[in-house]
Amino acid sequence: MIKTDLIVIGAGPTGLFTVFEAGLLKLKCHLIDALPQPGGQCSEIYPKKPIYDIPAFPEILAGDLVDNLMEQIKPFEPGFTLGERAETLDKQADGSYIVTTNKGTKHQAPVVVIAGGLGSFEPRKPPIENIIDFEDKGVAYMVKDPEVYRNKKVLIAGGGDSALDWAIFLADVASEVSLVHRRKEFRGALDSVEKAAELAKVGKIRLFTEAEVKKLYGDEHLEAVVVKHNDSEKGETYVEVDNFIPLFGLSPKLGPIGDWGLEIERNAIKVNNAKDYQTNIPGVFAIGDVNTYEGKLKLILSGFHEAAVMCQFAYQLINPGKRYVMKYTTVGGVTGFDGSKKEAKKEVVQSIA
Amino acid sequence: MIKTDLIVIGAGPTGLFTVFEAGLLKLKCHLIDALPQPGGQCSEIYPKKPIYDIPAFPEILAGDLVDNLMEQIKPFEPGFTLGERAETLDKQADGSYIVTTNKGTKHQAPVVVIAGGLGSFEPRKPPIENIIDFEDKGVAYMVKDPEVYRNKKVLIAGGGDSALDWAIFLADVASEVSLVHRRKEFRGALDSVEKAAELAKVGKIRLFTEAEVKKLYGDEHLEAVVVKHNDSEKGETYVEVDNFIPLFGLSPKLGPIGDWGLEIERNAIKVNNAKDYQTNIPGVFAIGDVNTYEGKLKLILSGFHEAAVMCQFAYQLINPGKRYVMKYTTVGGVTGFDGSKKEAKKEVVQSIA
Ligand SMILES: Cc1cc2nc3c(=O)[nH]c(=O)nc-3n(C[C@H](O)[C@H](O)[C@H](O)COP(=O)(O)OP(=O)(O)OC[C@H]3O[C@@H](n4cnc5c(N)ncnc54)[C@H](O)[C@@H]3O)c2cc1C
Ligand SMILES: Cc1cc2nc3c(=O)[nH]c(=O)nc-3n(C[C@H](O)[C@H](O)[C@H](O)COP(=O)(O)OP(=O)(O)OC[C@H]3O[C@@H](n4cnc5c(N)ncnc54)[C@H](O)[C@@H]3O)c2cc1C
Repeated sequence: MIKTDLIVIGAGPTGLFTVFEAGLLKLKCHLIDALPQPGGQCSEIYPKKPIYDIPAFPEILAGDLVDNLMEQIKPFEPGFTLGERAETLDKQADGSYIVTTNKGTKHQAPVVVIAGGLGSFEPRKPPIENIIDFEDKGVAYMVKDPEVYRNKKVLIAGGGDSALDWAIFLADVASEVSLVHRRKEFRGALDSVEKAAELAKVGKIRLFTEAEVKKLYGDEHLEAVVVKHNDSEKGETYVEVDNFIPLFGLSPKLGPIGDWGLEIERNAIKVNNAKDYQTNIPGVFAIGDVNTYEGKLKLILSGFHEAAVMCQFAYQLINPGKRYVMKYTTVGGVTGFDGSKKEAKKEVVQSIA
Repeated sequence: MIKTDLIVIGAGPTGLFTVFEAGLLKLKCHLIDALPQPGGQCSEIYPKKPIYDIPAFPEILAGDLVDNLMEQIKPFEPGFTLGERAETLDKQADGSYIVTTNKGTKHQAPVVVIAGGLGSFEPRKPPIENIIDFEDKGVAYMVKDPEVYRNKKVLIAGGGDSALDWAIFLADVASEVSLVHRRKEFRGALDSVEKAAELAKVGKIRLFTEAEVKKLYGDEHLEAVVVKHNDSEKGETYVEVDNFIPLFGLSPKLGPIGDWGLEIERNAIKVNNAKDYQTNIPGVFAIGDVNTYEGKLKLILSGFHEAAVMCQFAYQLINPGKRYVMKYTTVGGVTGFDGSKKEAKKEVVQSIA
């Protein structure tokens, strides 16, 4: 059982910044995310694209925004359960909550913060009849740990940035990398497209375009796939592989959170935005893209504000009756749980004559 | 008469970011501030100090935050009336408002946004009997345009960063610079204290410590001041000057805004935080430190969120019935009023075999 002060469901920008605001109040956070990496939409959908409306950044890449947030929250030592989906919410006799993931990991805390964005990112699965039989037995829809593929024969399917980037990365890790895409053209960042082309030319990536994976073979574990070419004259190719990674994108689904008894409106959770961003379940807050109220803007800067306000009220729930006097970070500094201390230099007082 | 879409009272971080959010909606802003420079508290009180809780900035100097905001809003060509205090608010027959400053400058717009922070920064005046007689006749409490002092004899009073920095700056502009401080020790950034000491040593700043300005003389215009030394043996020094600049800090006062019929609570303006941050006067919004509601945090990041939400509702007031569909800056780009265009690079679509 992982115990913490705030269980934060979702490690997008909102969930990440919550760690900082909670940390200022000496509250610890543990984050759960279905994705293998933090950053939510920013990391999963557009890491290499610029955002122009983050205050005081005339321009910042979404991936850099996430990196900066990770650096900012480091002193507050967040815990992470990544690659797992929060599945159930159970209230305990003592008023605390237990959140359990699809992998059975249990987390307990007095406060639950849902920062689930558009929902848990679920892979788009290709329509291959027996694919479910090989899930976790050679088939994976995202790369959690590339080391799993060391010296393995890997086949990746997809035509976007993820497929390109992982094919490039695994070319140096796996013993064989094949890349299958149903069109001729790939869609991705210029440098990725160019790099993949280079590797294909020197034979480090085996390329199948205008083709699709149609069948999977194996006993206990995946052993081979059949690649069917659009051009019927080319027919089918039988490829021996240890791993098949279809990367057709992830689409967010509110998912199990929808069954927790929360008041839902247009696929988002209603909160009290006039006060504390609490949901209809006491002790359960919802912030960022996942919540809704009159005038709600699904903007990153709104998630930041909601996190700051929510943490003040979470503090009061966890420390009933205790008065907290907010101090500006400039004035009080930032004291990390790791013992680090940031603070403004004091003014010099000095005679000059 | 200056005409615009949004009159923004206060050019602190909240007022500045309003220009950006309004600009995305194709609304123009004109900002009024009592201070001679934009940035509000950040520029006036702690420009050289780090802030640690601006999201995605593990650390940023308050002055740099303001510089970044100024760069971010540049494409939306904000107008500025600086060094003037918004004094009166008058509703017109057509529903628009006219805001007039203490210098008589008039601004007209359908929407007024009060982003006045802790209030208009008013100088702390030294207790010299006839000082008011010389205001704008040699006496000024802030430096608006240093060129005014070219080849003049200037006496500055004060012991903090402003007094030090302006004494240093004007040493190269004025014909004579004196610096009077009632203590021996100055309080400021290390480099300012050191630089001032250097200039005093080489005679470019005439230094009076443990002394105070007690009397002012002049006919139409200031001609001389009397500096009284704490040490009675030293008595008084008569100094011929053209200008006297007492820099004893500025303290914010809600001031005239308090008389506009707004609902005020603990020196701040009540707003509808459940919706649009509008005040009890329709078409008049209040955002940032100047407003209050349950759970209000006087944080910079809250002003940013409030600005974004408020602008959506201001848009509806100005364009009744028109539907605005928000587009992410990453997706829609930023088109400045100056014709500039920022946008994310499109993905490359390219065949690699
Ligand atoms: C192409 C694009 C461009 C954009 N441009 C801008 C822009 O210019 N400016 C701007 O402000 N915003 C922009 N946005 C929106 C912005 O990305 C979102 O507002 C922001 O990501 C919301 O952050 P969040 O942390 O609330 O949610 P998300 O980023 O959606 O993160 C939520 C996380 O929660 C996880 N999660 C959900 N449910 C569960 C569960 N049950 N178990 C485990 N994990 C779960 C998800 O996997 C996800 O990682 C853009 C979005 C897109 C797609
Ligand atoms: C020492 C110090 C440290 C701080 N540290 C932090 C921190 O770490 N994190 C954080 O988030 N916040 C911090 N703050 C608070 C932060 O500076 C404020 O939240 C922020 O400046 C508010 O911005 P604003 O634009 O709403 O108001 P302000 O910055 O106060 O700007 C308001 C402007 O309106 C002008 N104005 C008001 N009335 C009138 C009028 N009638 N006519 C013309 N002009 C008018 C004023 O002159 C002023 O320039 C700190 C503040 C101080 C003093």
